[in-house]
Amino acid sequence: MRLLLPAGTTETALIDGISAAGAAPELMAHTPSADVEILEYGEPVASPVTPVSPNGCPTPAAVTRAVREVVGFDVSVIDAGLSRPTAAPTVELGAEPGSDIRVESAVPDANAAFDRAYDYGASLPDDELLIGETVPGGTTTALGVLTALGEPTRVSSSLPTNPIERKRRVVEEALAASDLEPGDCDGAPLEAIEAVGDPVQPVVAGIAAGALESGTEVTLAGGTQMVAVAAALRQAGIDAPLSIATTSFVADEQGDRLREACERFDCELTVTDPGFDGRDHVAMRRYCAGEAKEGVGMGGALSLVPDGRMGEVRDRLETVCARLGIDDDEGAAETEPRTESDATAEGTRGP
Amino acid sequence: MRLLLPAGTTETALIDGISAAGAAPELMAHTPSADVEILEYGEPVASPVTPVSPNGCPTPAAVTRAVREVVGFDVSVIDAGLSRPTAAPTVELGAEPGSDIRVESAVPDANAAFDRAYDYGASLPDDELLIGETVPGGTTTALGVLTALGEPTRVSSSLPTNPIERKRRVVEEALAASDLEPGDCDGAPLEAIEAVGDPVQPVVAGIAAGALESGTEVTLAGGTQMVAVAAALRQAGIDAPLSIATTSFVADEQGDRLREACERFDCELTVTDPGFDGRDHVAMRRYCAGEAKEGVGMGGALSLVPDGRMGEVRDRLETVCARLGIDDDEGAAETEPRTESDATAEGTRGP
Repeated sequence: MRLLLPAGTTETALIDGISAAGAAPELMAHTPSADVEILEYGEPVASPVTPVSPNGCPTPAAVTRAVREVVGFDVSVIDAGLSRPTAAPTVELGAEPGSDIRVESAVPDANAAFDRAYDYGASLPDDELLIGETVPGGTTTALGVLTALGEPTRVSSSLPTNPIERKRRVVEEALAASDLEPGDCDGAPLEAIEAVGDPVQPVVAGIAAGALESGTEVTLAGGTQMVAVAAALRQAGIDAPLSIATTSFVADEQGDRLREACERFDCELTVTDPGFDGRDHVAMRRYCAGEAKEGVGMGGALSLVPDGRMGEVRDRLETVCARLGIDDDEGAAETEPRTESDATAEGTRGP
Repeated sequence: MRLLLPAGTTETALIDGISAAGAAPELMAHTPSADVEILEYGEPVASPVTPVSPNGCPTPAAVTRAVREVVGFDVSVIDAGLSRPTAAPTVELGAEPGSDIRVESAVPDANAAFDRAYDYGASLPDDELLIGETVPGGTTTALGVLTALGEPTRVSSSLPTNPIERKRRVVEEALAASDLEPGDCDGAPLEAIEAVGDPVQPVVAGIAAGALESGTEVTLAGGTQMVAVAAALRQAGIDAPLSIATTSFVADEQGDRLREACERFDCELTVTDPGFDGRDHVAMRRYCAGEAKEGVGMGGALSLVPDGRMGEVRDRLETVCARLGIDDDEGAAETEPRTESDATAEGTRGP
């Protein structure tokens, strides 16, 4: 089993009010570069930030890495528009960072990126692929694409309280800037991505399309961002079997909507609960409180854990957290938030 | 355990008479790009060539991949001057392809490449690293560096009959073009690499130096090319413990010279025999006949195989070979060489 991890950035993450609280915007651009280092090496290497929220919630990369250390699977990271250097090895497909979706064209090279990703996906010899993503701001661009495609749904958030109304207003502005109404891109998913998406979307969609075409089984590892990719694939006329694997944190927040969306886009849905509620560790408490929820292939990685071994993953997550400098302080983190200076010294995942 | 694989090219590989027989020069530049795809995915993906000699001898990448499929270890590929695209993920350190050593400066950015590689090596959290290489022409540039450093030794070859005299004449020309005599770079290893080396050398040396400085155990995975790197490291004043792990094919060809060189440079030497002589398979017969011998971390990878499991590696190598289109024809390959058009349609490893 191989996890492909397209990683990229969009300036959409910098919009006030949709970014994760407490994160310094100039550091958020480092988050995907740090995530892929955590996935490759177990901790940030060249990246100047460790993506941990002010509350002590680590990036989902920590969970995906913990699973990898327990069950073992191949990872190949794809540069899908990173804007900061990373010491992780990346596949170069020539993608560029995305612009704020409130400009006319958010991903000018969406078509070319899709085509290159398609060829890459079609060339891989694997029988099965998991495709994840890391792109701060990605749920807002997912909402943008779903709205442009005329698909009624609601996206998730990395924040406990989803700033969904703020996201809707941003998407309204973004569509207006591209001279579009909701549903105007019906049947033209790459136009939707170009106008109001992010650079990770055409790479995920392209790899999935190419791999499906060559007979590879594809699971999109993520939550509502992958629902947007599934919508794009279906509207592109790709009708091969497709799966989505996500976390119980996304499924719980989404209620019936997630299953309905998967039915609408003919996707098999796998939801995995890592059992974090059984542990008194700050990182797992934060996930249970609704922070982060998903990303960096977390739900897909968790789906690979054999029955009876999730306890090992939780143990290993504590080890990974210690490496990332997250010390569990037996509940104190919930009553004693870190100081402001700590908060601004760290990056956090965007919404 | 992590295998780091700096991969690059030098125009030195194109010099007539030192390249592997039968290889079309314009295809040889693809060899390292294909090697790292084999290591990552199990077969070439985007690369238009499969590095197999006209006799049916596969690149050592096939052996390293077979070991990886049996025992499992992490691989991170570093772009150390690739001149052709690869679909494998690579760490970017800004290295450029090397020039023919018979021009004044073969690796103009050797110092900067060493510094960037040093920082990368120092930043890695691993306790132990294997560092390999793939660079066609690499034994000639190794001879160049050893000669410039004034270190008496002899290098190996990927050919059954080592064109050592041809290499010596090339190195003489190369030194003259840089206005150097043998030994002129004594104590100045980066000057030697800049003048008559290849771009993989400062990356291997830099990573090793940085990793050693940060307390990581380092094994150089290769034959006489790694002897040249060890010489460079010692002449740079780095006296931390250092190991070299290579194949029995290099050790057999080198006789006492390899052990003497390792003593001279205070390197522990590990030689691993994969037991290919017990198999009647074209790939293993070609290795036993002295082709290829080493490269792409092969000797280091073989050193990771636990006692009693080498048979599994040989079995797996047959599987990898089948994937690469090498069909064993029960000895016919030795008496029925492929046609010329087959030979020119494939890349082969340089000397």
